[in-house]
Amino acid sequence: MLSRMAKSSKREIIFTAAAKLFRDRGYQATSMRDLAEAVDLKASSLYNHIGSKEEILKEICLANADKFSAGMQEVMHSKVSPLEKIKALINMHINIAVNDYTSVTSFNDEWRHLGEPALSDFKEKRKKYEREFLAIIKEGIAQKQLQDINPMVCMYTILSSTQWVYDAHLDLDQAQMSMDIKRMLINGMELRV
Amino acid sequence: MLSRMAKSSKREIIFTAAAKLFRDRGYQATSMRDLAEAVDLKASSLYNHIGSKEEILKEICLANADKFSAGMQEVMHSKVSPLEKIKALINMHINIAVNDYTSVTSFNDEWRHLGEPALSDFKEKRKKYEREFLAIIKEGIAQKQLQDINPMVCMYTILSSTQWVYDAHLDLDQAQMSMDIKRMLINGMELRV
Repeated sequence: MLSRMAKSSKREIIFTAAAKLFRDRGYQATSMRDLAEAVDLKASSLYNHIGSKEEILKEICLANADKFSAGMQEVMHSKVSPLEKIKALINMHINIAVNDYTSVTSFNDEWRHLGEPALSDFKEKRKKYEREFLAIIKEGIAQKQLQDINPMVCMYTILSSTQWVYDAHLDLDQAQMSMDIKRMLINGMELRV
Repeated sequence: MLSRMAKSSKREIIFTAAAKLFRDRGYQATSMRDLAEAVDLKASSLYNHIGSKEEILKEICLANADKFSAGMQEVMHSKVSPLEKIKALINMHINIAVNDYTSVTSFNDEWRHLGEPALSDFKEKRKKYEREFLAIIKEGIAQKQLQDINPMVCMYTILSSTQWVYDAHLDLDQAQMSMDIKRMLINGMELRV
């Protein structure tokens, strides 16, 4: 049991290291040898923990998609207004972007390197997420909480505005940054009467 | 003379094709063979026009940086308020993102693959652009045209919000999209008294 736990935590270390390498060099430029070096293993030992680079990409992308889906389900079923739901989603995006290295991998278009059926699976989850997000925005417009902006423009502006925040070298206070992004986005959407 | 013109236009065709390939597959996954195929040349003929894949990346990134710098100079020296300057910059970003395939290459972090001294040159141009953008935002806050948001947060929200628009399959009307993004961003920044 202990050895299984140790193995699973080693796996996590490998995934985090891989996510950092994918972020800094890109998925394709990262070799298994780079990864082995980053976690201080021989390449041959690395294969005791993971089967291939694509397996890592697949797990990272699908785990991220599931994380966002779970958050969306919670938000969708909460008894608050569309605007409050959108605030909660912006919070979620910023938190995940700031705290989870692996999220950058799926944000940064690296998912394009997924093979089938993972690629279709990932795209389907993403589409579903976007459909649900759009429905909340449309509801906010219908309820006259939001300006009558094209819902897709509104959604992509939110999604892209919460993607640069992982850039740690910017040295911004996270709480302040998160509040300012929300202020700017929410202010920008809200309908004032 | 005619043959020189023809050569230069062939070069342009190659650059546009390369930019599309870089966008769709990534710089590293694109081979000179792919590029030759895309422009209907033999790989050996391709080398009559360009020296290497990196030469293309370098020209694309630096030409883009210069384009943005030129736009910034024009905006900086125009006799309008900071808010109007920011509107002009948002316009420029959307226009370039929508109309210039090659811009995606430099947006999408592909510039990381540049070698020296091009890499330092590109980074320096980008830093200068960002410093000038930040100065306009700070001036807007000082003049109480803009909310007191962290200028860097404000700038990165603008820069990232204008990056997804090249995604042509979204099938949005460009004028409408451009207007809605501006409405959302400007509304979000503006200080109302």
